[in-house]
Amino acid sequence: MGSETKLIVRYQETDQMGIVHHSVYPIWFECGRTDYIKSMGMSYGQMEKNGVMLPLLSMRCQYRYPSYYEDEITVQSKIQSLTPTRITFHYDIYRKGHDKPVVQGETEHVWTDDGMRPVNLKKFRPQLFEFMNNLYLQEGSNEQKQE
Amino acid sequence: MGSETKLIVRYQETDQMGIVHHSVYPIWFECGRTDYIKSMGMSYGQMEKNGVMLPLLSMRCQYRYPSYYEDEITVQSKIQSLTPTRITFHYDIYRKGHDKPVVQGETEHVWTDDGMRPVNLKKFRPQLFEFMNNLYLQEGSNEQKQE
Amino acid sequence: MGSETKLIVRYQETDQMGIVHHSVYPIWFECGRTDYIKSMGMSYGQMEKNGVMLPLLSMRCQYRYPSYYEDEITVQSKIQSLTPTRITFHYDIYRKGHDKPVVQGETEHVWTDDGMRPVNLKKFRPQLFEFMNNLYLQEGSNEQKQE
Amino acid sequence: MGSETKLIVRYQETDQMGIVHHSVYPIWFECGRTDYIKSMGMSYGQMEKNGVMLPLLSMRCQYRYPSYYEDEITVQSKIQSLTPTRITFHYDIYRKGHDKPVVQGETEHVWTDDGMRPVNLKKFRPQLFEFMNNLYLQEGSNEQKQE
Repeated sequence: MGSETKLIVRYQETDQMGIVHHSVYPIWFECGRTDYIKSMGMSYGQMEKNGVMLPLLSMRCQYRYPSYYEDEITVQSKIQSLTPTRITFHYDIYRKGHDKPVVQGETEHVWTDDGMRPVNLKKFRPQLFEFMNNLYLQEGSNEQKQE
Repeated sequence: MGSETKLIVRYQETDQMGIVHHSVYPIWFECGRTDYIKSMGMSYGQMEKNGVMLPLLSMRCQYRYPSYYEDEITVQSKIQSLTPTRITFHYDIYRKGHDKPVVQGETEHVWTDDGMRPVNLKKFRPQLFEFMNNLYLQEGSNEQKQE
Repeated sequence: MGSETKLIVRYQETDQMGIVHHSVYPIWFECGRTDYIKSMGMSYGQMEKNGVMLPLLSMRCQYRYPSYYEDEITVQSKIQSLTPTRITFHYDIYRKGHDKPVVQGETEHVWTDDGMRPVNLKKFRPQLFEFMNNLYLQEGSNEQKQE
Repeated sequence: MGSETKLIVRYQETDQMGIVHHSVYPIWFECGRTDYIKSMGMSYGQMEKNGVMLPLLSMRCQYRYPSYYEDEITVQSKIQSLTPTRITFHYDIYRKGHDKPVVQGETEHVWTDDGMRPVNLKKFRPQLFEFMNNLYLQEGSNEQKQE
């Protein structure tokens, strides 16, 4: 059902326009991704130590509203699609006091070994793939997500 | 035509995967955008002082190959599309010794006044719009850009 | 007394040495400072809107132990010294499972108006100065801090 | 005689005070350090591949004047002190059009092997130590550096 990550906007994350710089949201996506994996009872750090990495293939961000210093931010993360070779996460970023997402995005990743060679996760780590796949199937409502 | 920006990968820009972190490329896009505008004989800083801002609406990145500490990077930037209310830049990022782009991306921006209210640039700053539009038309070969 | 700020190490904060990059700790100091001011019932954002700014004069960091991705970090912040023209904060950064501070530091700031001109806070904003001074005096145990 | 590194201030490096955020200068110090080592005919990346690392022990920054978006920055770097177990670099950061350094700083490093264990460089890599020591001695004028 996805995970939620709470953050407070840091002064360093603002720019001279007085808003959070757009390059910060991909970092918050990553915080969300870390928490999503942790909420599954695993850890991305542990996955890396077990020889599985998840470098990015692509990223998309939609900037709808600005955020400001000291804002209370919530990152909602979920799996958008999963195959034996790729995984895509979707993120909705909210700021307290504003009911629509301020930023939305996706990151598409390739499963690799620790030498950054692409792998078929279903063959390379069958249990991990089953685990992720069950999670993905449970999310169910992925189809009607807003864009 | 477009502009070229030269950068050297900073140690701080790497992550524990041993490669440039994906959130760094949007910052390099911005360096490219700054240089593009400067190559036109203007400056983005000056534009802001004149009350015109260019916040992002959306961003896309395609990560094709990794980059590493101390790599010599070239950012090629150009206008991909221009209307009185929006402008989109396209970026190709190269690392020395590698002939294909390692990362490609687009950033879509909205023209606003200094209160971040969207404006029709053709009416708000007709000379600036003419100037940008001439540049855009001169680029010509935008149509057959690779994706 | 002081305040405590909890953080989780972000992947983006690591470098190719596999540890948190040293330039990240000053950002965590700032998170600590923000929370310290908030714990006093104020907000640094509000202070800025009231025309009082706190740019840095100097910073010192002692790096004693590394931190790693996903570590649970605590930043302890307190006022180290206060005069009508300057304020110095001291920070002790802990990671869970390690009883000594991993990083310690100080930041020295000058009180300025919103044009970045140095001010005598006691004259410029007497109530704010009294408020800060009471806090500082309450901390008391500042003298025997380790270095 | 030290090295010089040229940089242009990035938009992302500014904060809502409208100036370069103080956490950026340590990153510029690192760019200077990289160039200093490169100017000696080596590369820090190569040093790391040869099993020698240089994690930080401490850092000091003096912020004298602000820098702004698009400023042309010069980082002057040199060795301030060298022993078989430690090395300290000094940095003077200038912005074009301003004759005094805007920021000055030092970083103190410990020589370690690739397991981050402190080493005596004179024994661990005698040639590298000799090389560094000759450079350090050639700088000569280190004694009368301003503070």
